[in-house]
Amino acid sequence: MKKIINDPAAVVADSLRGMAAAHPDLLQVRTDPALVLRADAPVTGQVAVISGGGSGHEPLHAGFVGPGMLSAAVPGAVFTSPTPDAVQAALSAADGGAGALLLVKNYTGDVLNFETAAELAGLDGGEVRAVIVDDDVAVQDSTHTAGRRGVGGTVLVEKIVGAAADRGADLARCEQLAREVVGRVRSMGVALTAPTVPHAGRPSFDLGEDEMEIGIGIHGEPGRERLPLESADGIVARLLEPVLADLPFRSGDEVLLYTNSMGATPLMELYLAHGVAERMLAERGITVRRRLVGPYTTSLEMQGMSLTVLKLDDELTELWDAPVRTAALRWGR
Amino acid sequence: MKKIINDPAAVVADSLRGMAAAHPDLLQVRTDPALVLRADAPVTGQVAVISGGGSGHEPLHAGFVGPGMLSAAVPGAVFTSPTPDAVQAALSAADGGAGALLLVKNYTGDVLNFETAAELAGLDGGEVRAVIVDDDVAVQDSTHTAGRRGVGGTVLVEKIVGAAADRGADLARCEQLAREVVGRVRSMGVALTAPTVPHAGRPSFDLGEDEMEIGIGIHGEPGRERLPLESADGIVARLLEPVLADLPFRSGDEVLLYTNSMGATPLMELYLAHGVAERMLAERGITVRRRLVGPYTTSLEMQGMSLTVLKLDDELTELWDAPVRTAALRWGR
Repeated sequence: MKKIINDPAAVVADSLRGMAAAHPDLLQVRTDPALVLRADAPVTGQVAVISGGGSGHEPLHAGFVGPGMLSAAVPGAVFTSPTPDAVQAALSAADGGAGALLLVKNYTGDVLNFETAAELAGLDGGEVRAVIVDDDVAVQDSTHTAGRRGVGGTVLVEKIVGAAADRGADLARCEQLAREVVGRVRSMGVALTAPTVPHAGRPSFDLGEDEMEIGIGIHGEPGRERLPLESADGIVARLLEPVLADLPFRSGDEVLLYTNSMGATPLMELYLAHGVAERMLAERGITVRRRLVGPYTTSLEMQGMSLTVLKLDDELTELWDAPVRTAALRWGR
Repeated sequence: MKKIINDPAAVVADSLRGMAAAHPDLLQVRTDPALVLRADAPVTGQVAVISGGGSGHEPLHAGFVGPGMLSAAVPGAVFTSPTPDAVQAALSAADGGAGALLLVKNYTGDVLNFETAAELAGLDGGEVRAVIVDDDVAVQDSTHTAGRRGVGGTVLVEKIVGAAADRGADLARCEQLAREVVGRVRSMGVALTAPTVPHAGRPSFDLGEDEMEIGIGIHGEPGRERLPLESADGIVARLLEPVLADLPFRSGDEVLLYTNSMGATPLMELYLAHGVAERMLAERGITVRRRLVGPYTTSLEMQGMSLTVLKLDDELTELWDAPVRTAALRWGR
């Protein structure tokens, strides 16, 4: 295992300390339980938008904490759900009196722990809602998941709902908007290599020198099929076609296209794949109105990529464009 | 070789087409010769700040083209200097009548080709200056380099000089400022794995399962020594000590600390290493005033990192903070 770490058991806390040092103007970081908050949290009168999940997908979620996006992120151990008490601590620290919305990727442990925390907070009088993100069209059920997995689409939900909360939308509206975005977003990924969890010390799965796994999960969960490595055109078509067929997206649709690196796939390849996806969408009469290209929903040092397509309307486009100031996404402020 | 590409010989042009598709509001992209320009180039009356070099280090340099940073970038083939005629094309397209400053990483081919282009442009009446960046303290001479190599410090030179040009500094002032930043910035890197150049098809060097190369270049050029892999504390100390000793940086100094991933090292590890470096600087009485953490000066899918330290003063800090709008760095606009 080749990693730049000290103690494998302390890697999340050590990394969060570095993140705190890197962004003193932006973030408050706690390590017991692990918690990343806006520097100015709680923001009085604003719905707290909170996400979280296992670590190892950075910048998801802590890199999206800040004005215009998340109020707080709750990082679990690597590829491990955060505990209910960590989620409760985030709720207690971030709620500014207007309630809280939990954005939860659809993994059994995450759903259970976030919903338990929401119930406990409700007993204390806090108003908390949870919306499950399940955008991955690859497989219906998977390791640790009943139903579809939550992957790259989560970034788009966080940005759009965070913008609405920033403008003063109430909890019911934020929840409704989150469900609307979840209903309009679809994703699929591919792995060329496996990630290595620090405390495991070896790759999560074996993949031959000329193989790729189509439909991979962001924890290395099995996908749809293992195939010989193809060209970028072939790979992008294998991701894009199931995504488009699922909603379905149709000629005349306007979309946001998010081309994501799983970690080790370089930006040179990612832009290349993005160009292929734009061409294929144009050929189908689908207009790409907004783009996001980069390593934003990663799986440690896995090589691979994912494509996420969101069907836009004017309101979603405007909320996407709204100012945001986080470690990983920043524009307009 | 596991890459998401079509034709290995067309990878740079294919990637640039994807970049153009991803950033239509920000960039003009040409592929023969390869050239990335600000969407609004040439900007009349403003010094054109131009950089470039072999591809494979993305987002360096094309990801830094935009208001407040570079006017144009000239990408060569992977790990190969751009030709003089490509640099000339950039000069001709970006010069808004106030002259042009070429920021050149110190590699023999880059220096020769950029200086040849500058001379030819001078014969045509354009006013062109070139400043060489040679911030890598690892080795004195290296593969393809007489003197020290130019690495991560280039990003800081580009940002600071680009901000000055954006404010209307003239060519002489931009050149002087670039030399000043070069005089104050030092870097060193480490590799845990080797990069693979697409048209070569195999890793650039062999590194054992438990080995790292201290002082690596961004094209995989040999460093100072090959050692057994150490903890993050050990690795960061091996990079930071030669950097600090070189200028030297002293107790009481205020610095910008740039913690860079070589590509495949995940953000989780990078923040961890950044935290270690901040602690070690604090122990020496050096104050970190500004930070940059991320994969900004990469070497394809190489695992590893580099540290860059810039000695700040009030003017450099203000120019660093000035608004910038590029694909890879954006704040304040």
